[in-house]
Amino acid sequence: MTRIDDVARLAGVSTATVSRALRGLPTVSAATRRRVLAAAEQLDYEVSPSASRLAGGRTGTVAVVVPRITRWFFSTVVEAVEEYLHESGYDLLLYNLGGREQVRQRVLRTANLHKRVDAMMLVATPLRPADLTALASLDLPGVTISSGSRVPRWPCVRIDDVAAARTATRHLLDLGHHRIAHISGDPDDELAFTTHLDRRRGYQAELRAAGLPLDPSLDVESTFTIDGGNRATAELLARGGAPPTAILAACDEMAMGAMTALRDAGLRVPQDVSVIGIDDHDLAGVLGLSTVAQPAAEQGRLAARILLDPLGARTLGPVVGQRGAGHDTPVILPTRLVVRDSTAPPRAH
Amino acid sequence: MTRIDDVARLAGVSTATVSRALRGLPTVSAATRRRVLAAAEQLDYEVSPSASRLAGGRTGTVAVVVPRITRWFFSTVVEAVEEYLHESGYDLLLYNLGGREQVRQRVLRTANLHKRVDAMMLVATPLRPADLTALASLDLPGVTISSGSRVPRWPCVRIDDVAAARTATRHLLDLGHHRIAHISGDPDDELAFTTHLDRRRGYQAELRAAGLPLDPSLDVESTFTIDGGNRATAELLARGGAPPTAILAACDEMAMGAMTALRDAGLRVPQDVSVIGIDDHDLAGVLGLSTVAQPAAEQGRLAARILLDPLGARTLGPVVGQRGAGHDTPVILPTRLVVRDSTAPPRAH
Repeated sequence: MTRIDDVARLAGVSTATVSRALRGLPTVSAATRRRVLAAAEQLDYEVSPSASRLAGGRTGTVAVVVPRITRWFFSTVVEAVEEYLHESGYDLLLYNLGGREQVRQRVLRTANLHKRVDAMMLVATPLRPADLTALASLDLPGVTISSGSRVPRWPCVRIDDVAAARTATRHLLDLGHHRIAHISGDPDDELAFTTHLDRRRGYQAELRAAGLPLDPSLDVESTFTIDGGNRATAELLARGGAPPTAILAACDEMAMGAMTALRDAGLRVPQDVSVIGIDDHDLAGVLGLSTVAQPAAEQGRLAARILLDPLGARTLGPVVGQRGAGHDTPVILPTRLVVRDSTAPPRAH
Repeated sequence: MTRIDDVARLAGVSTATVSRALRGLPTVSAATRRRVLAAAEQLDYEVSPSASRLAGGRTGTVAVVVPRITRWFFSTVVEAVEEYLHESGYDLLLYNLGGREQVRQRVLRTANLHKRVDAMMLVATPLRPADLTALASLDLPGVTISSGSRVPRWPCVRIDDVAAARTATRHLLDLGHHRIAHISGDPDDELAFTTHLDRRRGYQAELRAAGLPLDPSLDVESTFTIDGGNRATAELLARGGAPPTAILAACDEMAMGAMTALRDAGLRVPQDVSVIGIDDHDLAGVLGLSTVAQPAAEQGRLAARILLDPLGARTLGPVVGQRGAGHDTPVILPTRLVVRDSTAPPRAH
């Protein structure tokens, strides 16, 4: 049987280069790839994914863990990651946690991932100490997206959630709002991870900077979903007293739920209450929702690129930990304010 | 090293049963599973996914091919499929075609899928003759979702697209509409597969049954997306003459685009133009969109169950072709009309 060494000898390159060339990794030049393919064909060499994995710890597969693939941010990230991986010859093994704690445990602690994948990407996956221990023992290269999950020595791609919430709050203040409510995730919500804490911090910091008091009755915890936004807003309105003139929702899906609850209560957006979200969901435009846009697809592409570059440059084993300092510094992508129809000056203004 | 035969002998069952029990397949009784697990533990036997695959053609992985994971229907199907697969001990390899013809070719024709997965699920994946040949040579069990992709001898789960469009059209006719436009996919759109053809057939059949003429100027082809619905509606309005009093969009995302285009043109929904979709997208309620609901998650779960049952009943190889007749008959799930705020009688009525 032809071995990878024979192909390497005939092509005049290293076995690592043969492996990379046959996988279509971008770090091999077109000329080298042609030479390797010609040698492999001449020798009738076929890489089976399993043989090359067993030989070099390479499965050609990356595990991507997301909380809910049905939410805009995660499906957008996964689509971008999948495209980048496939262009580089990798397959995507999808783990959707679906808010099920036992699934998270099974995937991170018992799924034999080190036998199934070359690398991992965790997207906003909440991590407990036992998960970190399990991940360390997997000894795989990895990357995280969002501030909600940090793994020591794994690169992290995210936005500045504090700044995003400050931008949204500043927009409402600039319009003249003073009674600005905040609806957000709660600590028991698997989707909320810690992102919502950063966004709350931004909301509070901007109010404080404007010299406004923090009114706890205007801050409601719920879940990071349309329904969560709906319930939080209904609760906000049921609390009595003067309703807020504006609502900052911690994500666009919550903002959409808020718009529904306001409509159901007979309140108009933005005439009676302004609403702003964070995300720029693909339906934000349809709903006329003002928001602070985050680049979801770009975060996915960038994380995939960070993950594959070291894999492409080496044949064996984890590399992130060997790349020295600097990889604990997150890569932070910019956000931007998008003003649509859901925000306006308060009526009395 | 402990072999699967040793575990089977100690547990007093066949190796096939050991394999099924260790994979958590639903066809093994709880008592048998306990016996097998006890024997495996006593003998210190660990199934590595690769060993069991190489031993029995089992990778513990199912390939799921979707056109666009960012669209509501596909993310909802994938979430349901993933949950069912994981509960049964299978992983999900995700292929997102993204409208890229070369990706479709690579996945279906050259991805060495027979070495990587035990089975395949094609969700609304357009298939060309060469794809069918490639799938046949893979010799894998499979299942399809939606009328858009049929593979000989693979079971198919779908809705009745003709009936769904008839129901939507009938609702508009019942409200008194006569100038009912239809916006839909076009043959060059990778997302449109053939589903849109069935839906057009339903629209036309219901108009004919009501004795109404088919007006080609009221039928616009576009893409199966929000933007496609927006463009189709803009084109419809630009054609001059009396605008339609109602629009049937072939999917909810197109309907949402239509609502945006109507708003941009200064027309109110439903006072000036009624809009109905097909799907029951998770934001249809937020937008007040009337629609014909299809059970996306149920289609995913059912397809996964159909796929795993035969796998669970046998250890080796494809089985669908061996299950005799009846599996060319699609499993058709029901749809239902959901009336919200976007449909009303025409103004003159």
